[in-house]
Amino acid sequence: MNFKEELKKYIDIVNNELQKYVKIKECPEQVLNESMGYSLMAGGKRLRPILIISTYKLFKNDIEKAFKFAVAMEMVHTFSLIHDDLPAIDNDDYRRGKLTNHKKFNEATAILAGDSLLNNAYNIVIEDIARSKDEQEKAKKTQALYELSYGIDRMIAGEYVDTEYEGKKISSQYLEYMHENKTGALIKASIKIGAILAGANEDDIEKLSKYAEKIGLAFQIKDDILSEIGNQEELGKPVGNDRERGKCTYVTKYGLEASQKMLDDIIDESIKIIKNYDKNSEFLIELALYIKNRNK
Amino acid sequence: MNFKEELKKYIDIVNNELQKYVKIKECPEQVLNESMGYSLMAGGKRLRPILIISTYKLFKNDIEKAFKFAVAMEMVHTFSLIHDDLPAIDNDDYRRGKLTNHKKFNEATAILAGDSLLNNAYNIVIEDIARSKDEQEKAKKTQALYELSYGIDRMIAGEYVDTEYEGKKISSQYLEYMHENKTGALIKASIKIGAILAGANEDDIEKLSKYAEKIGLAFQIKDDILSEIGNQEELGKPVGNDRERGKCTYVTKYGLEASQKMLDDIIDESIKIIKNYDKNSEFLIELALYIKNRNK
Repeated sequence: MNFKEELKKYIDIVNNELQKYVKIKECPEQVLNESMGYSLMAGGKRLRPILIISTYKLFKNDIEKAFKFAVAMEMVHTFSLIHDDLPAIDNDDYRRGKLTNHKKFNEATAILAGDSLLNNAYNIVIEDIARSKDEQEKAKKTQALYELSYGIDRMIAGEYVDTEYEGKKISSQYLEYMHENKTGALIKASIKIGAILAGANEDDIEKLSKYAEKIGLAFQIKDDILSEIGNQEELGKPVGNDRERGKCTYVTKYGLEASQKMLDDIIDESIKIIKNYDKNSEFLIELALYIKNRNK
Repeated sequence: MNFKEELKKYIDIVNNELQKYVKIKECPEQVLNESMGYSLMAGGKRLRPILIISTYKLFKNDIEKAFKFAVAMEMVHTFSLIHDDLPAIDNDDYRRGKLTNHKKFNEATAILAGDSLLNNAYNIVIEDIARSKDEQEKAKKTQALYELSYGIDRMIAGEYVDTEYEGKKISSQYLEYMHENKTGALIKASIKIGAILAGANEDDIEKLSKYAEKIGLAFQIKDDILSEIGNQEELGKPVGNDRERGKCTYVTKYGLEASQKMLDDIIDESIKIIKNYDKNSEFLIELALYIKNRNK
């Protein structure tokens, strides 16, 4: 397997699906729709939808059955970015090398665009469930929807803790709690959703959840490292902001070297979990390494 | 039927149910939960949940089966108020005689509390559907959930149009579109949800939807009138704000007298629709009159 090619294929699938939901019809709220489309199509790694689809693919090949959840998940992620970037929260002007939503449009639009993306995510999946005729399919999708909803709840809680503790000392317990929720919850939800939709059994879901927890934490530690020493151009946003703002990150708490060591260890652990797995998990192994080695 | 007593009974039911969802457990995001509870329990007419329950009661007596949707609907309404009050949107300091969420807490908290209330609304209903064993119940609830989701979509669109046209001239067509969506959508959704959950047939839902459209529009016209000439103390928020801000309202567009006439006519029409209805619709008739005559 050529990982980069495979990854590119997945990104193309996700972008193609997302594009279908960008509303261009003329209507009184047209600018709101434009702002939602602007942030939704502003690039990004598409990690969460790819996790849904690639986990689904561990079990079944008809991956198009996971597309609606993949789209919904990326909408949720985009909603969270738009609101996090707002002046009252992180006050960021750039994201992925482009102006943030409230800078490109305005604050009122950004607040409502975030709200609407969150709601659209639900709307897409609920419509699909309501139309579905097969009772078993319906049950799996409802279960997956519950995981999505729970993940969002945890993500918002984590974001709140991040905001509340800006500029304050934070215990390592709280730092882990924050990360587990802020970034980890939706990554874990993505993997569980892929598995549930594909009809995986409890054992499989349990194993995959553990892998998910590891890469979720690793993803955030890597984010913290990049925020400190990343390349501004590649990253598409300013470097060093976290420290200036007194944000609690792994790097500001434990230092760069210890954070790098933690990252390496956690990725090793995640690979160990998934390696001995009886499914074809090559892509998920490579994805763990990609999370560790990425520059943006 | 003593309408005031009946109304009070419904309000007590709703407040009692809402209270069950106010989280008081100690946790890192405790203040976020407090702020959600603060706005959720800040009083209010509880019109939308009451519409769900009283419409359900037209068909069936086991109203507790509609409680989860009633709670979810009020959470959605509260989310929309918190975000509307934000400095970037309406910039209101008072709501129902109490400080608005961002004034009591802060802007970041208010944004995330709104997000979390919207998500909680979904979470409560989805968990209920996922746990439900009866396929028919599941199907009704999923259909009702779709109506909720669609209503929220329209509500956000209406709020956006309201924001976009502040201080600008607006056609009567756009003014109606704005109101139909901003206030009307969730009122209509509430009535449809009550009917769907109770197993009403298409004809019933159609008739009730028409009634809902009328009282939704009437509710907003009355809001516009109260915003201009209401009693600040009873209203719990400043009077005359809409005009100062150049907001498009029925009063600023058509004047007070014409708006009052429209309100009277629309309420008459709504009563005509529901009066010839074969169900016991006394409460809904009185509710229409209450919407017209309320002082807050």
